[in-house]
Amino acid sequence: MTRVRVNAFTISLDGYGAGPDQSLDHPLGKGGEELHRWVFPTRTFQRVVLGNDDGTTGIDDDFTVRSFDNVGAWILGRNMFAPSRGPWPDDGWKGWWGDDPPYHVPTFVLTHHARDPIEMEGGTTFHFATSGIHDALEQARKAAGDKDVRIGGGVNVIQQYLREGLIDEMHIAIAPAVLGQGERLFDGIDLRSLGYRVHENVTTDLASHVVLRRGEAKPEQGA
Amino acid sequence: MTRVRVNAFTISLDGYGAGPDQSLDHPLGKGGEELHRWVFPTRTFQRVVLGNDDGTTGIDDDFTVRSFDNVGAWILGRNMFAPSRGPWPDDGWKGWWGDDPPYHVPTFVLTHHARDPIEMEGGTTFHFATSGIHDALEQARKAAGDKDVRIGGGVNVIQQYLREGLIDEMHIAIAPAVLGQGERLFDGIDLRSLGYRVHENVTTDLASHVVLRRGEAKPEQGA
Repeated sequence: MTRVRVNAFTISLDGYGAGPDQSLDHPLGKGGEELHRWVFPTRTFQRVVLGNDDGTTGIDDDFTVRSFDNVGAWILGRNMFAPSRGPWPDDGWKGWWGDDPPYHVPTFVLTHHARDPIEMEGGTTFHFATSGIHDALEQARKAAGDKDVRIGGGVNVIQQYLREGLIDEMHIAIAPAVLGQGERLFDGIDLRSLGYRVHENVTTDLASHVVLRRGEAKPEQGA
Repeated sequence: MTRVRVNAFTISLDGYGAGPDQSLDHPLGKGGEELHRWVFPTRTFQRVVLGNDDGTTGIDDDFTVRSFDNVGAWILGRNMFAPSRGPWPDDGWKGWWGDDPPYHVPTFVLTHHARDPIEMEGGTTFHFATSGIHDALEQARKAAGDKDVRIGGGVNVIQQYLREGLIDEMHIAIAPAVLGQGERLFDGIDLRSLGYRVHENVTTDLASHVVLRRGEAKPEQGA
């Protein structure tokens, strides 16, 4: 059955999922790159995203492998596709990742501004979903077939799906960094009332990996 | 030189330093005990706080040892001393910990309601500081001599000292638990602008330990 997942979403020690002031120079917001030190060096990130042949293995790489595994469609907030806001500018922008983005499956971009799909190399097609998060999810489920739908982010998009109880599993990495400002992933989100419990917890020097699922706790965590 | 420290202060994955609804039955707030699974089993907690002879050793215990090391005075918010609010009731309450509290040094309780000091067994004397956080810190520094002052908490007290730039070092443990509600340690706190950087980062299965200091970053963290 198709699950709806968040994977490899990293927050800072102080809870921020991105730095402030996203721009072309700072796609992750100012200081945001500090969040992702655990994923950049992994063999999987190096191979899948950058096309390189080497990289680290181990726990951080295992979580990176899982993040790409069995994903049949992605949903992204507009900021994860483009730095522009408002009506689409005629600038030829095709996403942050170049001609062959790391998605490799149908990828639904939430936006208020309609536009035609963009077919990229390597299997990624960007669809622009203008009818809200529920409709986007329905489209993504259909596109994913029996695979999962991955909600890529950003913070605001994950929050919207969380509040509607639509996310089945969430892998959060906590990075040993402070951002001070930005968007807090869990602001206004009562994870416990929403039914999320810690299901896995593994740590490395670069991140603390926590997997949350709805209504499922580790036995030792009690009721 | 006397430093002002926070040690072994634990927050949940979603950023809460205590659960909601503190009461006599829930001194850490509802669900708050889930935060402290890393510290309870340690040899040092078992010995210093409970008077037992065994317990775990390793990283979690090392951080517990450090939390008690070279502490010459404590500062606590009133909730860390008593469940009561407002004028002191005549109920004989002498803190959460029984006759021999784990502080063993002068311990300053921030309150708006004056009362005489309470001398306990084992070196702890509770002083009631009614002239604000600065005056309490001055008294605590004097009492600590050349040792450090430890700010015990809770969240609101740590936030007040953080905003005034008065905390030199802060050891935060992140527990793999979700609380959903309660007091968020870093709400309204811009750690980065306040000058805090990650200085150490060590993880175990039960907690991710992060030590922050002002103006001092790990070399690999960059400027």
